[in-house]
Amino acid sequence: MGTALAHAWLAAGYQLTVWNRTAARAEPLAAEGARVAATAAEAVASADLVVLCLLDDASVGDTLADADLSGKDLVNLTTGTPDEGRARAEWARARGARFLDAGIMAVPPMIGVPGSGGYVFYSGSREVFEAHRDTLAVPAGTTYVGEDPGYAALHDVALLSGMYGMFAGITHAFALIRKEKDIDPRDFAPLLANWLVAMTIGVHGTAEQLHSGDYTQGVVSNLAMQVAGTSTLLATAEQQGVSPELLTPFMDLMRRRLDQGHGDEGTTGVVDLLLR
Amino acid sequence: MGTALAHAWLAAGYQLTVWNRTAARAEPLAAEGARVAATAAEAVASADLVVLCLLDDASVGDTLADADLSGKDLVNLTTGTPDEGRARAEWARARGARFLDAGIMAVPPMIGVPGSGGYVFYSGSREVFEAHRDTLAVPAGTTYVGEDPGYAALHDVALLSGMYGMFAGITHAFALIRKEKDIDPRDFAPLLANWLVAMTIGVHGTAEQLHSGDYTQGVVSNLAMQVAGTSTLLATAEQQGVSPELLTPFMDLMRRRLDQGHGDEGTTGVVDLLLR
Ligand SMILES: NC(=O)c1ccc[n+]([C@@H]2O[C@H](COP(=O)([O-])OP(=O)(O)OC[C@H]3O[C@@H](n4cnc5c(N)ncnc54)[C@H](OP(=O)(O)O)[C@@H]3O)[C@@H](O)[C@H]2O)c1
Ligand SMILES: NC(=O)c1ccc[n+]([C@@H]2O[C@H](COP(=O)([O-])OP(=O)(O)OC[C@H]3O[C@@H](n4cnc5c(N)ncnc54)[C@H](OP(=O)(O)O)[C@@H]3O)[C@@H](O)[C@H]2O)c1
Repeated sequence: MGTALAHAWLAAGYQLTVWNRTAARAEPLAAEGARVAATAAEAVASADLVVLCLLDDASVGDTLADADLSGKDLVNLTTGTPDEGRARAEWARARGARFLDAGIMAVPPMIGVPGSGGYVFYSGSREVFEAHRDTLAVPAGTTYVGEDPGYAALHDVALLSGMYGMFAGITHAFALIRKEKDIDPRDFAPLLANWLVAMTIGVHGTAEQLHSGDYTQGVVSNLAMQVAGTSTLLATAEQQGVSPELLTPFMDLMRRRLDQGHGDEGTTGVVDLLLR
Repeated sequence: MGTALAHAWLAAGYQLTVWNRTAARAEPLAAEGARVAATAAEAVASADLVVLCLLDDASVGDTLADADLSGKDLVNLTTGTPDEGRARAEWARARGARFLDAGIMAVPPMIGVPGSGGYVFYSGSREVFEAHRDTLAVPAGTTYVGEDPGYAALHDVALLSGMYGMFAGITHAFALIRKEKDIDPRDFAPLLANWLVAMTIGVHGTAEQLHSGDYTQGVVSNLAMQVAGTSTLLATAEQQGVSPELLTPFMDLMRRRLDQGHGDEGTTGVVDLLLR
């Protein structure tokens, strides 16, 4: 990811100093015009804007241990948790730097490709975001989500978590048709993808309900009906020889919410069952 | 749903005889021009095409126990399992009827509304589908998925199962931001919905890999990297006070596949772990 980011800025004509722990992975960038620093501290000293994209939060602390950060603008594109973002902001402040945390919603082939759909969440210092807005927009789109330095990571993780739920559903769906020699998965794919796209409408309904606090607002398929329907889903999994383990946790929660007397809601009430 | 279907055909000028166990729910349709039959057998006797939309498969058997089905075309829009569809086809054949099973991918407000996106899967007798194609297209779009009378139900359930996975992911995502008073769920919703829509691209990748048998084909984010990333997702859930129960089943399966030596694949191998 660091290489992809460097490519994008170099291609856009930016002056860039790069550093990587394993020097051999940074050196090829010299041919594109990058200055290769011998140490991280030297790279930091070379510019006011310092962009980090390392393995994890601990590697950020390791890398910058000896660097003089005073007066620097630090932008951290390393994936982490909200609390790591907050602690890193505090750590940067104590060293005299301004800090912006980030969460990258893209894979390297999307970096520096306008229209790829890739973008980056930013949170923390609004001043840093505004000062470097155009620079940050070179590798990917930018979405600023608040002063709380934990919010970029929170948005990042929330979207990834949502995606893994969807992947679990997709996995179960393909398992159901896996042994049917008369169903080509490539014919099934657009049916499934179009259905999922159509059903993302539910995201907006849930958001409205969480905002208003009325979980029965605009409900089309009520929980009582949905829970009744789960037996068909489980029986079908059984008939197709598919383990229901990816379906049952959500079904169990729907049933718990129904048993609490909320049969006239949709599925939004399940959100609250997850909270401790 | 039966009422919505009847509305659509009556509005399109079809001659219709209706029956419902509780007569009071069918009688209002008389004002729109429907003939209301006193018994199910009488309704069946009135036409060559018989459309059923009842609670479940058992209610179909109950309702038609005394009806003479010989020479009839039966179209069953009652939700069921693939095996119920197959058994019902056999049952209809033994009674001299042709049989088409169906799975409705719509809610009643979408019925009879062109462009609503709602449609119906059909499988079983291709002759019945072709003979009544235009009639069946009146309430909603039609998608014929094969001669196997179980395939309409299988497609229906597979798409619904995929949707519940996505709903589980959406639920976890909203739970992560639930206690953050500075994040309005209505601002978060389009970010999540757009991300999920973008990530449905994975459906096509999985289909190609299942077809070719090469699960490393076109992999952008490999399983080793994805499993490494799960710790950030779990730590974030912990920090936000959110139970990970909707995430962990898929994560456990990703790790199992990785442990089997498939770190260079994406997530497609998890499909096979679900099969018994
Ligand atoms: N790749 C993606 O699709 C993607 C997408 C979104 C976000 N991200 C995030 O981007 C960041 C980088 O990911 P990547 O794909 O570039 O991973 P990667 O290819 O594994 O690169 C990891 C980088 O971190 C360095 N590093 C690891 N431990 C270090 C330490 N203790 N001190 C100094 N440097 C250390 C590595 O240096 P060496 O070369 O010396 O090992 C390497 O430059 C991660 O936070 C990742 O979550 C990646
Ligand atoms: N509503 C939806 O959003 C939706 C979406 C897709 C598919 N479907 C499917 O459409 C079918 C009907 O659903 P619905 O929403 O219309 O449900 P519903 O409002 O509960 O209606 C159920 C119907 O089945 C009848 N029934 C139940 N048991 C019976 C029995 N033993 N003998 C004869 N009739 C019996 C009921 O008659 P009474 O009036 O006498 O009780 C009623 O007409 C179901 O298979 C459902 O899964 C519905």
